[in-house]
Amino acid sequence: MPPFTSITIIGAGNVGSHLGRALAAVGQPVLEVFSRDKGKAQSLAAEIGAQPQSELAQLSAAADLYLLAVSDDAIGLVAADLCAHLPSGKAVAHTSGGTPSEVLAAHFQRYGVFYPLQTFSRERETDFSAVPLCIYSPNSSFEAALLALAHRLSRSVYRIDDAQRAVLHVAAVFVNNFANQLFHFGQQIVEQEKLPFDLLRPLILETARKVQDADPQAMQTGPARRGDAETIRRHLDYLQKFPELAQVYEIMTERIMGSA
Amino acid sequence: MPPFTSITIIGAGNVGSHLGRALAAVGQPVLEVFSRDKGKAQSLAAEIGAQPQSELAQLSAAADLYLLAVSDDAIGLVAADLCAHLPSGKAVAHTSGGTPSEVLAAHFQRYGVFYPLQTFSRERETDFSAVPLCIYSPNSSFEAALLALAHRLSRSVYRIDDAQRAVLHVAAVFVNNFANQLFHFGQQIVEQEKLPFDLLRPLILETARKVQDADPQAMQTGPARRGDAETIRRHLDYLQKFPELAQVYEIMTERIMGSA
Repeated sequence: MPPFTSITIIGAGNVGSHLGRALAAVGQPVLEVFSRDKGKAQSLAAEIGAQPQSELAQLSAAADLYLLAVSDDAIGLVAADLCAHLPSGKAVAHTSGGTPSEVLAAHFQRYGVFYPLQTFSRERETDFSAVPLCIYSPNSSFEAALLALAHRLSRSVYRIDDAQRAVLHVAAVFVNNFANQLFHFGQQIVEQEKLPFDLLRPLILETARKVQDADPQAMQTGPARRGDAETIRRHLDYLQKFPELAQVYEIMTERIMGSA
Repeated sequence: MPPFTSITIIGAGNVGSHLGRALAAVGQPVLEVFSRDKGKAQSLAAEIGAQPQSELAQLSAAADLYLLAVSDDAIGLVAADLCAHLPSGKAVAHTSGGTPSEVLAAHFQRYGVFYPLQTFSRERETDFSAVPLCIYSPNSSFEAALLALAHRLSRSVYRIDDAQRAVLHVAAVFVNNFANQLFHFGQQIVEQEKLPFDLLRPLILETARKVQDADPQAMQTGPARRGDAETIRRHLDYLQKFPELAQVYEIMTERIMGSA
């Protein structure tokens, strides 16, 4: 028997869509898809065999799990709204890395977190079975059900409490947002010289692949790791035309030298 | 007819090994593999059907291209040595992103660069056909031959002069060494909380995949991009236990906010 007989997804953005498709793919029934954007609700619902809904007040009370896949600042508001329209006793989980589970506590007794630690985009398919799912609820039977659901979707399931999840979110900013910003810097530099970013793309991919089964520190190379002061000086000379990048170069070089 | 009838590879480290295998795979004859480390010379030579050599003075003069796959600081010295032992008129190219072609000019008339813009490691196979090859020689007929050789190995071949290559090398430090250092920071943070680095690995890989067919700036997400001051403040509070990471967090956050 599946851990939940029917699930309603609130939010049809990137997380809601990828999660909805993953649920459908393992045969987990999705009852309704809610989005204020009627078109989004309809297209995701049609894709995964659910009913679309764009009025929160009209949501069916028949689901036994409501998954909130909305932006961090909307979680509290949507939870309050949902609580006003659903009979008491319903179970709710949000899907965010950045928001404590307690924002749901004022509105629901059975609340928790179902956080996929991945970056999703509209254009790209995701192998959901490889996405780490971070599960938490202070209610242990509800948590067990969320964990069981997670294990149906992914081979990488973790029990992660609010404090741990907050830390994971900081780490995710470093490896995702900041790394992506470095890729942007790389693009700025090569395009300034009228060279295509395609020159750097294979290097970016291989750098990420290398740490899939090794530690980043063991994989480090380059002038900072070698302590090659002459090359570093030449690079900083060149970066005089990008003062904001020069500062990043200096700090990252210091860090690499310091952790060698 | 192949652009070169036989090639000798000087250096059996990561670049020399991957290049040697790629040459063998397209049926480009490799005459000799030189390494001061006899074992390395022998094992690579055996693998690609070449002769091993660990005495530079004994190198055959029969090759029509000598590829220098040695560390940056050794290029000049090895070129001088090589020049002393080979008859005049031999053609030489180095494989480095960080060294101007001119270091070869004192020793050879036909000199150039054959730079694979990729990070290689002993343990990992590389799809050489996707590796950008950056080719240059001031001698146009030699450059044409190097370009022809490159096109046999890769679908991604560029003519890149010394100045452009120096810039590429700076960009490569950002997207490879510095990104890898961010991955190391991510690992430090999660391991401090006794969480496994495996939680972050899929995110790292997907972040790199996303920019394979999109611009990094368009892919940016997270608290800095959203201008989410509350989350940024919480992250910096947490990072008080990692002052060196806090400084990187602040600067990268500023940069993302500034380039939004």
